[in-house]
Amino acid sequence: MSTKPIITKDEMLQHWLAHRGLTRKAIEKFPEKELFEFSIGGMRTFADLAKELLAIAVPGLKAIATNEAEPFNPGSSIQTKAALLQHWDEATPKITEYFNQIPEERFHEKFKLFGEYELTIINHILYFIDNEIHHRGQGYVYLRALQIEPPFFWDRY
Amino acid sequence: MSTKPIITKDEMLQHWLAHRGLTRKAIEKFPEKELFEFSIGGMRTFADLAKELLAIAVPGLKAIATNEAEPFNPGSSIQTKAALLQHWDEATPKITEYFNQIPEERFHEKFKLFGEYELTIINHILYFIDNEIHHRGQGYVYLRALQIEPPFFWDRY
Repeated sequence: MSTKPIITKDEMLQHWLAHRGLTRKAIEKFPEKELFEFSIGGMRTFADLAKELLAIAVPGLKAIATNEAEPFNPGSSIQTKAALLQHWDEATPKITEYFNQIPEERFHEKFKLFGEYELTIINHILYFIDNEIHHRGQGYVYLRALQIEPPFFWDRY
Repeated sequence: MSTKPIITKDEMLQHWLAHRGLTRKAIEKFPEKELFEFSIGGMRTFADLAKELLAIAVPGLKAIATNEAEPFNPGSSIQTKAALLQHWDEATPKITEYFNQIPEERFHEKFKLFGEYELTIINHILYFIDNEIHHRGQGYVYLRALQIEPPFFWDRY
């Protein structure tokens, strides 16, 4: 049996950070008003979706890294695009810091996140990334509906 | 240095197959007509997005596993929901077969896919999965716009 990893811990982090860079570009594409007001079919605005991502990334990783159990708190007083982008950028070094604090050995441990969701740590982290891709894809439809060209999906490499 | 992998090759495959199960549920939620006709902002229909996913998954993995270089061919004559679901299901064992043929040692090799895109094999495979999540997220907006409840995003575990 080979033990060569198909992806290292740091590569997984870089993969996520590259996705966060693309999500930042998607946020930037929205006009201020539509970022906070536009949606389709009763869904949340893209600002609200981005705030959910912020409420998961650092708090989720911090909970895992420090073995704390805090409830999920999606509330946020962010009300401008500049503030949203600032929070986005402030989260980046914290994501790196907490992610790096989680040893490889723990990735297959089960962890109950936000006092509710019990998955292995690798599955939590994949969920964080997948959820971001999912909601950003929704933001792309909002942009298209607003006649705005979204960033290229592959613009992460 | 620890060499314990944060995710094994088989776990990555299972992760993808679970996402494919969710995408299948999303396809099933569409009424026949809207699957092939509805879209927003000039985008492709969800059937066309799903056909793109089919044109990537097995052909992409087969190219990597067999070291062939074929051009990307998104054309498909699928014209009914039943046929789309059948192709979806027929792809599943082939994805498993070709994925399993790629040894761990190759995941960090660069590979030029469809004669065009040069990435490491792990990045190609992450791209396949991410692209599916991205387009399925767009399908969720179509469903919401059609007043149809999408499947739960977490309904993969």
